[in-house]
Amino acid sequence: MPLLPVPVPPGGVDPAWLPPAAFRPLGTRRTLIRGSHPLVDTVHGEVAAACARFGGRVVRDPEPGAAPYDLVLDLGGGGGEAFSCARREGTTTVTGSGPAGLLYGLFHVVRLGEAAFRGERAPEAHRPAVALRMLDHWDNVAVHPVMGQVERGYAGGSLFWADGRVRGDLERVRAYGRLLAACGINAVAVNNVNVHRTEAHLLTDRIGEVALLADALRPYGVRTHLSVTFAAPLVLGGLPTADPLDGAVRAWWARAARRVYEAIPDFGGFVVKADSEGRPGPFAYGRTHADGANLLADALAPYGGTVHWRAFVYDHRQDWRDRTTDRARAAYDHFVPLDGAFAPNAVLQVKHGPMDFQVREPVSPLIGAVPRTRLAVEVQATQEYTGQQRHVCWLGPMWSEVLRFRPRGASVGELARGGLVAVSNAGDDPFWTGHPLAQANLYTFGRLAWQPDADPRRILDEWIGLTHPDAPERLAAGLHAVLDGSWRTYEKYTAPLGVGFMVQPGHHYGPSVDGYEYSPWGTYHFADRDGVGVDRSAATGTGYAAQYAGPWAEVYESPDTCPDELLLFFHHVPYGHVLHSGRTVIQHIYDTHFEGVTEVEEACRTWASLAGLVDPARHARVSELYREQLRCAREWRDQVNSYFLRKSGVPDERGRPVY
Amino acid sequence: MPLLPVPVPPGGVDPAWLPPAAFRPLGTRRTLIRGSHPLVDTVHGEVAAACARFGGRVVRDPEPGAAPYDLVLDLGGGGGEAFSCARREGTTTVTGSGPAGLLYGLFHVVRLGEAAFRGERAPEAHRPAVALRMLDHWDNVAVHPVMGQVERGYAGGSLFWADGRVRGDLERVRAYGRLLAACGINAVAVNNVNVHRTEAHLLTDRIGEVALLADALRPYGVRTHLSVTFAAPLVLGGLPTADPLDGAVRAWWARAARRVYEAIPDFGGFVVKADSEGRPGPFAYGRTHADGANLLADALAPYGGTVHWRAFVYDHRQDWRDRTTDRARAAYDHFVPLDGAFAPNAVLQVKHGPMDFQVREPVSPLIGAVPRTRLAVEVQATQEYTGQQRHVCWLGPMWSEVLRFRPRGASVGELARGGLVAVSNAGDDPFWTGHPLAQANLYTFGRLAWQPDADPRRILDEWIGLTHPDAPERLAAGLHAVLDGSWRTYEKYTAPLGVGFMVQPGHHYGPSVDGYEYSPWGTYHFADRDGVGVDRSAATGTGYAAQYAGPWAEVYESPDTCPDELLLFFHHVPYGHVLHSGRTVIQHIYDTHFEGVTEVEEACRTWASLAGLVDPARHARVSELYREQLRCAREWRDQVNSYFLRKSGVPDERGRPVY
Repeated sequence: MPLLPVPVPPGGVDPAWLPPAAFRPLGTRRTLIRGSHPLVDTVHGEVAAACARFGGRVVRDPEPGAAPYDLVLDLGGGGGEAFSCARREGTTTVTGSGPAGLLYGLFHVVRLGEAAFRGERAPEAHRPAVALRMLDHWDNVAVHPVMGQVERGYAGGSLFWADGRVRGDLERVRAYGRLLAACGINAVAVNNVNVHRTEAHLLTDRIGEVALLADALRPYGVRTHLSVTFAAPLVLGGLPTADPLDGAVRAWWARAARRVYEAIPDFGGFVVKADSEGRPGPFAYGRTHADGANLLADALAPYGGTVHWRAFVYDHRQDWRDRTTDRARAAYDHFVPLDGAFAPNAVLQVKHGPMDFQVREPVSPLIGAVPRTRLAVEVQATQEYTGQQRHVCWLGPMWSEVLRFRPRGASVGELARGGLVAVSNAGDDPFWTGHPLAQANLYTFGRLAWQPDADPRRILDEWIGLTHPDAPERLAAGLHAVLDGSWRTYEKYTAPLGVGFMVQPGHHYGPSVDGYEYSPWGTYHFADRDGVGVDRSAATGTGYAAQYAGPWAEVYESPDTCPDELLLFFHHVPYGHVLHSGRTVIQHIYDTHFEGVTEVEEACRTWASLAGLVDPARHARVSELYREQLRCAREWRDQVNSYFLRKSGVPDERGRPVY
Repeated sequence: MPLLPVPVPPGGVDPAWLPPAAFRPLGTRRTLIRGSHPLVDTVHGEVAAACARFGGRVVRDPEPGAAPYDLVLDLGGGGGEAFSCARREGTTTVTGSGPAGLLYGLFHVVRLGEAAFRGERAPEAHRPAVALRMLDHWDNVAVHPVMGQVERGYAGGSLFWADGRVRGDLERVRAYGRLLAACGINAVAVNNVNVHRTEAHLLTDRIGEVALLADALRPYGVRTHLSVTFAAPLVLGGLPTADPLDGAVRAWWARAARRVYEAIPDFGGFVVKADSEGRPGPFAYGRTHADGANLLADALAPYGGTVHWRAFVYDHRQDWRDRTTDRARAAYDHFVPLDGAFAPNAVLQVKHGPMDFQVREPVSPLIGAVPRTRLAVEVQATQEYTGQQRHVCWLGPMWSEVLRFRPRGASVGELARGGLVAVSNAGDDPFWTGHPLAQANLYTFGRLAWQPDADPRRILDEWIGLTHPDAPERLAAGLHAVLDGSWRTYEKYTAPLGVGFMVQPGHHYGPSVDGYEYSPWGTYHFADRDGVGVDRSAATGTGYAAQYAGPWAEVYESPDTCPDELLLFFHHVPYGHVLHSGRTVIQHIYDTHFEGVTEVEEACRTWASLAGLVDPARHARVSELYREQLRCAREWRDQVNSYFLRKSGVPDERGRPVY
């Protein structure tokens, strides 16, 4: 892959969606802040900085006889994250149900901009639909020889760790916490779920380093979580076993948790990847995942902590010759029988799809199928399979589709009682996310986690407005244009009709149609000269479709009712199969691949037309990345089209070049 | 890839083909050594050690009145590598034409064993057919982040370099030189042809380290060569150019060569990979490869040194969509126009095939096509594409076929006037070559370089006899059985009919039929639903076949006359095309892949039957490696067969499992 230059934004670090100008409306006003709490101090600091820059004024005690304040930020009696906002007789009043609520209310005012100070506003209540809105960082402390410092990271090194330990200067961690608070995120796991040898020690003798990160994030209402290894009692404790039912093991974890809370009183909890892709877990002792999760839940319970137990459990040493084993079934098959067995403070963390963050997957059938279990739903902001932050691929519409999907009555957003989690796409890159436009994914995730049924396009425009507060309409429209359809564009030029995994093995960037076809990873498309796709029907396939409740089990069971975009995920069909769109599968493959590249070309032209409206460093970096995206999109188009022409023998109806 | 245990042989390092017992016949005799030279001292040391162990006696001056000696080792008047051997009246006499000849004569006696001391022997003259018999080590001084310490090395670390510098203890380098002398090798290039930043300095400020290696190899008649970067005047000299016609550049190289010879008076010369896979070269200055090679040749000429200029020049950023560009043509197209332009001490080093050491390639058409140029022919003892020293693949028959091939009247062995070169397969592994049986490749290369028209099977038996001097017939037969056909077995279960490159990208181990199909490396098979292969005919293809002289141009031009084993290298044919063997191409693919695995299974059984006859450490390691070979061979069989069944739709006639 080519090396790209890194034009650095003015000031060295990009302000992302909190540029100073976003605080102008607030900073020119007179504000009264009421209440006492460290987070209220944070609110005060934000307003004071804005006023210092723009000439306004902020006080914490009402001045007798003074004119009415433009803005009153008031701390209510509860302890929550909700807030209300109203405007009457020239005064905007924001009341937090607790200190965190006041902080979120402040950023609400920032988002409103001048509108916060105009006319009257009837009282509005805002509260997060999901209590835990979390980022998982797959950051290693010690640089991994293959995976690097941030596993699946495309934005430089870790924000938290450098040179084998916690960063000495945590200014950027504080700035990160501030950005997160401004989009509603309230929890961060600071290390990779694949916990290697060095990182295992963060739980015990290196907890002090985690405490420093917690101190840096706390002023913005962000709690710190830690990924731990299930083998910790062996690796760190010198015990002969990590059996979750062993008394010494239980005592070891209880002691470990106590010491964590001595160092970090508001510690959030543990994240665990167990019996997954080679990680240790309870299976080694003949125990269930509930046994494993409850071991850690019990250790955390006295302190109010939570264990996030990942449901990403499948056979990663599958025989590709065996068409009866179906990785997509694995999470459901493993965890449905355990429903009701998990402790109240154990959360089962489920990837949104049954496979692994492909550009298109159905919603995991496990979601909704374990009513007596707290579920968290995990999405991937880091663009492992969606262009690795070299391609513009705004994931808001995908996440919104997932969150609004109703597997069994309620929506995924409602079923995610244990939280919404994203694998972070941020690093120590000057633009935070490598690709400057990938900031929109981080922002959108936070806002959707707060309100899963929000219109993602409204969030996109919110992000555009915050990031470019003084943007002329042409810039805002241009940014919206290049981002809004980018996920579907990416889908078009990459893997068609839900088939997935046509990527280069290992690093997962760029096309390799057969790259995972003969692998042990359970990732196949079964293309032959007659057709393509995986038969997951109950009637003739792996039975995966039957893991869904009605009506989805029926919808997915038949190629006649299965949505086009998931057809090859659920069915093996001939190339001549006619889609609901009226096109054959093979012609759909050709058409979408040509369309996808055309759409990237259009986006490149749109972006070029914005030169002069965007900071030159940002414009240059995005332009450079668009060149790579276009090169790569053409490679995808030509490899996928050529592969299927060579296999099917069916020419493109329109006679375009296929090789 | 699985980790394999490394059972260590007795004594820590395997004696390979010079175990003490091989010296018993010599060591029990009375020997007279005549002549004075450091190499004669080496000969004396060998005989003295053997006598010390087995009770014989060696003298350097005839003892008056003594009984006739069993063996007289006599130094003739010339300075060459030839020797004669005769036996008359109870005395075996070996006369070296020079000190090196005497050394080779000694090892001839060792090879003969007891037979050297029986009956009468008419005088026999032995002389190497090829003057330069060389190993190129692709060893890095600084471990490369991707390629490791030894590029394409499968035998541990470097014999020469450790911890970023020359090894402190050079005992193994001396032992290596001894093994090389015993099979006839007389030159070693001690570093990777891809010369990275650290290694560039070996030419100048770090030449002292190279001199230490030369000192260690010299007692066994092995001269030291060095790979250098064409950009050295820029990188090391601070010059603004490396233009071969620039006066300052020429002066820089002249100075550099002078200093090298001050440190190593018998230095062999330079090896250069230029304008190849991204390495710097004369093209950057609009100069030819002859200009480049002659620059270095001129610098070396005053001291008798030689530059080995590699002909491995091709476009490694090819567009897979373009079927007119043919990497196989590249060496011929680049170098034939330069015939006659190279200095007398410049040697053009050509890979034996036009591509890159695949299990089956035609002989490079460049060999024989540049009569006014000294050619060296390069083979690959390190098994990059032939099982990476996890698979048994004895390459003697392949090399022998190449060396006996007559591109234009003379054989390749005769045309290789500039030398025969192998990329070494040795490292600091206790068995030297990772797989103990891969020692046979190193030995065979040396012996074939000495006598290119030798019967490789005789060399194999020679190696077996030396390595296992007291082997019962069953062991010798078993070793012969598992090695003799192993190359053809490997060919059967991997890439059929000369098609090549169906390997996993990057590391090149294991199957990936499309792994290099859409790559920039010029390595394609163009399989579609109707057929497979590359049309390299003059009539309808890339014209590569016409690079050969008659009769080969005609033989290769038509699928009717092209040998089966090269059919897909030269032609794109339908799956139903009938081979000379009478089988269709598709049935040949199925049959050979099933046969290949069956042959590996047979070899495993044969090896298992040898337990108790072989040192346990050696037996255990080979057994472990056979398990991996069998697993991998099955993977090759099933992936290749399934790929072609899915593409062709033609079932196996015999109904065996294809997936």
